[in-house]
Amino acid sequence: MDKKVGVGLIGAGFIGSIHADSFKKINHADILAVMSPPPGEAQKFAEKHQIPRHFTGLDDMLALEEIDMVIIGVPNHLHCEICVKAAEAGKHVVVEKPLCVNLQEADRMIEACKKAGVKLMYAEELCFTPKYVRMKGLLDEGALGTPILFKQSEKHDGPHAPHFWDVELSGGGVTMDMGCHAFQFFRWLNGNNPVKSVYAQMSTTVHTDKTMGDDNGIIILEFENGVTAIAEESWTKPGGMDDRAEIHGSEGVAYADVLQGNSIQTYSKKGVGYAVEKAGSTVGWSYTMYEENWNYGFPQEMEHFVDCVLHDREPLVTGEDGKAALEIIFAAYESAGTGKKVMLPFQTAAARPYDLWKRRNS
Amino acid sequence: MDKKVGVGLIGAGFIGSIHADSFKKINHADILAVMSPPPGEAQKFAEKHQIPRHFTGLDDMLALEEIDMVIIGVPNHLHCEICVKAAEAGKHVVVEKPLCVNLQEADRMIEACKKAGVKLMYAEELCFTPKYVRMKGLLDEGALGTPILFKQSEKHDGPHAPHFWDVELSGGGVTMDMGCHAFQFFRWLNGNNPVKSVYAQMSTTVHTDKTMGDDNGIIILEFENGVTAIAEESWTKPGGMDDRAEIHGSEGVAYADVLQGNSIQTYSKKGVGYAVEKAGSTVGWSYTMYEENWNYGFPQEMEHFVDCVLHDREPLVTGEDGKAALEIIFAAYESAGTGKKVMLPFQTAAARPYDLWKRRNS
Amino acid sequence: MDKKVGVGLIGAGFIGSIHADSFKKINHADILAVMSPPPGEAQKFAEKHQIPRHFTGLDDMLALEEIDMVIIGVPNHLHCEICVKAAEAGKHVVVEKPLCVNLQEADRMIEACKKAGVKLMYAEELCFTPKYVRMKGLLDEGALGTPILFKQSEKHDGPHAPHFWDVELSGGGVTMDMGCHAFQFFRWLNGNNPVKSVYAQMSTTVHTDKTMGDDNGIIILEFENGVTAIAEESWTKPGGMDDRAEIHGSEGVAYADVLQGNSIQTYSKKGVGYAVEKAGSTVGWSYTMYEENWNYGFPQEMEHFVDCVLHDREPLVTGEDGKAALEIIFAAYESAGTGKKVMLPFQTAAARPYDLWKRRNS
Amino acid sequence: MDKKVGVGLIGAGFIGSIHADSFKKINHADILAVMSPPPGEAQKFAEKHQIPRHFTGLDDMLALEEIDMVIIGVPNHLHCEICVKAAEAGKHVVVEKPLCVNLQEADRMIEACKKAGVKLMYAEELCFTPKYVRMKGLLDEGALGTPILFKQSEKHDGPHAPHFWDVELSGGGVTMDMGCHAFQFFRWLNGNNPVKSVYAQMSTTVHTDKTMGDDNGIIILEFENGVTAIAEESWTKPGGMDDRAEIHGSEGVAYADVLQGNSIQTYSKKGVGYAVEKAGSTVGWSYTMYEENWNYGFPQEMEHFVDCVLHDREPLVTGEDGKAALEIIFAAYESAGTGKKVMLPFQTAAARPYDLWKRRNS
Repeated sequence: MDKKVGVGLIGAGFIGSIHADSFKKINHADILAVMSPPPGEAQKFAEKHQIPRHFTGLDDMLALEEIDMVIIGVPNHLHCEICVKAAEAGKHVVVEKPLCVNLQEADRMIEACKKAGVKLMYAEELCFTPKYVRMKGLLDEGALGTPILFKQSEKHDGPHAPHFWDVELSGGGVTMDMGCHAFQFFRWLNGNNPVKSVYAQMSTTVHTDKTMGDDNGIIILEFENGVTAIAEESWTKPGGMDDRAEIHGSEGVAYADVLQGNSIQTYSKKGVGYAVEKAGSTVGWSYTMYEENWNYGFPQEMEHFVDCVLHDREPLVTGEDGKAALEIIFAAYESAGTGKKVMLPFQTAAARPYDLWKRRNS
Repeated sequence: MDKKVGVGLIGAGFIGSIHADSFKKINHADILAVMSPPPGEAQKFAEKHQIPRHFTGLDDMLALEEIDMVIIGVPNHLHCEICVKAAEAGKHVVVEKPLCVNLQEADRMIEACKKAGVKLMYAEELCFTPKYVRMKGLLDEGALGTPILFKQSEKHDGPHAPHFWDVELSGGGVTMDMGCHAFQFFRWLNGNNPVKSVYAQMSTTVHTDKTMGDDNGIIILEFENGVTAIAEESWTKPGGMDDRAEIHGSEGVAYADVLQGNSIQTYSKKGVGYAVEKAGSTVGWSYTMYEENWNYGFPQEMEHFVDCVLHDREPLVTGEDGKAALEIIFAAYESAGTGKKVMLPFQTAAARPYDLWKRRNS
Repeated sequence: MDKKVGVGLIGAGFIGSIHADSFKKINHADILAVMSPPPGEAQKFAEKHQIPRHFTGLDDMLALEEIDMVIIGVPNHLHCEICVKAAEAGKHVVVEKPLCVNLQEADRMIEACKKAGVKLMYAEELCFTPKYVRMKGLLDEGALGTPILFKQSEKHDGPHAPHFWDVELSGGGVTMDMGCHAFQFFRWLNGNNPVKSVYAQMSTTVHTDKTMGDDNGIIILEFENGVTAIAEESWTKPGGMDDRAEIHGSEGVAYADVLQGNSIQTYSKKGVGYAVEKAGSTVGWSYTMYEENWNYGFPQEMEHFVDCVLHDREPLVTGEDGKAALEIIFAAYESAGTGKKVMLPFQTAAARPYDLWKRRNS
Repeated sequence: MDKKVGVGLIGAGFIGSIHADSFKKINHADILAVMSPPPGEAQKFAEKHQIPRHFTGLDDMLALEEIDMVIIGVPNHLHCEICVKAAEAGKHVVVEKPLCVNLQEADRMIEACKKAGVKLMYAEELCFTPKYVRMKGLLDEGALGTPILFKQSEKHDGPHAPHFWDVELSGGGVTMDMGCHAFQFFRWLNGNNPVKSVYAQMSTTVHTDKTMGDDNGIIILEFENGVTAIAEESWTKPGGMDDRAEIHGSEGVAYADVLQGNSIQTYSKKGVGYAVEKAGSTVGWSYTMYEENWNYGFPQEMEHFVDCVLHDREPLVTGEDGKAALEIIFAAYESAGTGKKVMLPFQTAAARPYDLWKRRNS
């Protein structure tokens, strides 16, 4: 019988819950501990998800020998520091998106893991979303011909946690928070063919009262092999989270809608207990989803990372991919700040992507 | 660590493949053997699905002590005999739909299992289909008010295996083969409230050359609590399998489409390798599904049955449910033969449902 | 230049408004007068729709020589009397559905018009609904093969005017009020091939407090040429009017959704001024329709009737069609009352369809 | 009785047929003549559409006193010359999109019409498309809040007539041919608020063998009032023409799909006679449209122009709008050629938009 991978969760927020839920079905791994600094938070999380141990201090959790792999689900500005510590403690690392807040941090994370001989795995779940996996399959089998255009959009009416709205912590607005999904998704669809250029149009519209960051973004990528990709991101769309993608090729098209497209069309005079992430009021018509975590591919993603650790395999999505996505993010903010398409590779010592948009003189 | 449930598959056809695939993800069970009489068939199946042992004789497989539970996926007319043998061998039994071909067989199967102290579990996967489970949840939480009308339809252009088309073996046509899904689905939605009456309209239209059985059926059920249900079944619908349901209540409605509704809308000049069950040609537009088995609930259903065996729990769907569905099927064929609504309970010694439609004088 | 047809509207209610609106685009006809008994009602209507003359008395309007054709849009129980008077006054007659309340009245109306040498035209707009006309075209051109199954459903949460809820006046509930649409629609789709039998399941569910009539009905028709048709009618469906149909043939299928299927999918925090007939609250998600009258075919229908009068042509939908639809309605209520399929032709002296369902002993 | 407007069609191609069909329902206008140079072409068109007179020479048709208004539906490079002649002959002018091939021509056309005291009306039918008119209505009534993002896309697999593919004649590729629709559509949605900047990404992908022009284009507009708009244009999308738009606002969203969204979902083993413009093969699944001209708003658009001539009203869409759309087109090609967002107003003496993309050194 295979050894089981011991997992430690770092962070006890929204994404941590999704990870905890994902591991329930995974045979070859167990979540052994969760860590979060605020007093009582890790304990409450551990009770809720039946995790044996909980910690307020990271070092204490990293000291557990039985933990082989940690999953970092904390605010962006803490990713680097925690990743380096975990690597130094000999743990394999899964980092939630975006990888971190700047390219120097990205290099430090990649280097630390390489030096420690542990894997750095980047948690972009769209590469595991079953509907998107099938759609990529259509492209790969030649059913759509040569790819011409990719589209992906993710829209809802804004994240809950305050750190997202503070560009000092997050590094940027919606393009940072959700554009990273699209960028890695497009790289994956296109067989990792290099991105040639990035153009972005960003704006702060509805949420001017709570953030300086972009709450709407449109980003166009050009790939070396001729493919164009359009990403649309929004923190201002009411009515429930929306995630859809398209592939247009020389011989066909494929349209995939992950949430609304899979929903139970519902009318309810009193409203539904839970319809979908960020649904808001469900009185009247709504789109009731089910098994959102499975439909997004979170359990499948975690199963893959566990398998990589167990059998020493190369992850589908690595720290290098995370850095590539971050480079595109920086180029996007640069483009938004200059009104020009930005060519890749794009090097910058900017502390955060947002600075290239709005703090060009500092 | 929990003991693992040892499973034996009886039958190596289409549904057997679905079951084999479903068990790959199940922790607490292993398929230890497969049995099918035609020489070489079980062996080929075992190789394909990596099942350790294969048999052409049922008794040989039933002799294995390590087998706790068998899954019967064979032509209808063989269900009873095999179930009784398996029960006598002390194995828990899962029977694919329909339970068997007549009510006397149903009683024998239920009795044999009761006597042997083994579970008789009826494999109606619609009670595990994630989208339908969520839809039932909407009803149960009160979001739709008091139920008024249920609808469910399953349509494709006809099964492959010859036994389906021979009413002597199958017992009936599409109403027997697919109506059973709808009937148990409606009973489950309605909290097992009793069915009061059954009316059916059947016809043989396109497939008059290959069967005497009905290839189209419309069945109306009335429940004691006032709910009406319409089932539509067809073996003559081209363009890919179609499975959808609706709940209409006093305070809301819910519409769920399991296959086309979850699909990737695809256009392909050359066609797609595999779009969906019974898609036919996929040149041009088609509806590409993914993870059909999961979306239908087959792994979830098998996981439940394994859990019932492991922990001695009552299955969600039992042999009694299978018999109730069969009773409704008989009443449907009686109704089609008389042009009248048939009240339940309906007792008949007819050898097969079809006889009540077309052999009323014998 | 062609003479213009002079039109008189009888009735100033909801359907009268739709007719008035329809005539705005019709070249060869003018609405010259409107008549409605309640004091002030016809005048208000005339002002709103810019109709030159208004009357409270029918005879006064029928006395106008310049009126060639009248359109009867009044409660069912008044159709016959008004039709006979109009025919006797030498006016061509358009009668809104259902034709009248019993078969004797139907015969009187047909006879009166024949004797007077005027046309009796039955206003079933589904025969002019552009989307349904195109769908029939698919069938007629052979794209779907031999027809097997027709489906049509019309559902909303109940009519406004009180007379609909009083079976003494209306003759029946939703099967009378909306089933007539489906029945003539099916006859038209099937090239007027005769209906062989009728089966119906009716219930009064949500509106038991306001009516004795059926508020939900499911009716199955069998045609001589083997086609089956399912009509679903409901006065209890919230969320806006819904009208959809399907044709299943030996070689294809066609699905048409007239309202929701053509809508602008809308989310509005404050709600929409007008989304669709009977939408109810439009806060949150709703389905905003546009040009409902044109999309339903009302102007096209009226244009056709005007053309028939102008050029002495046979109308697409006649009083005989209206009587045939009414016969099916009577058979449906008989079936609901007996639990048996009712064969056609069906003769009855019942004063109203409802009586065959619930007053079988009187 | 109102005078009737006498109309002359210039051009006997695809768009000419749509116009001829549109006038059948218009009361206050008659098409009196059609003109097209190739011998026999105008005559054949006149016979087909029952137009009394036909010409091969423009001057001959312009000499008819009874013609009040001409409609120019000819290759782009001929628009200016014909417009000026028609104005000099005292005829009101309707010009199909795009207005002409460069800004100097646009000025000449506007000047000629002003000097002659005739109207210059720009035929952008999307401003009359019923579904889009209703969607604009949702925005205007405040149901969606403050506008944030507009989207519109028009895609098919390429026009038939050779002149479209020759940039010397057309002026550009798909962005010229179909982007003009989106640009005027966005201006109209936004209450003619000025466009601030234009960014475009263009490529020639599938049709490199037949054109130097762009066969795919993505254009982002920024408006002075903060709205962003994305236009997607394609000449490489198989499966039938596709036209859809979205409005995202601070308080709501609206999604409208004009063709596929209104279609009859059809499966046909043999194929459908006609499904929709550029459907290609209709064997298998397809989307059957109906009344395309009405659904696009062509008759409504022509009715409006006739009304403007009859009653001396200002058209909804003028030559100035056509010039504004053309200015955006030029800015788009400039942007594609430089990789930068281009600010408006944008002045250029370029002979055609294409030159700013690919002939930057000439």
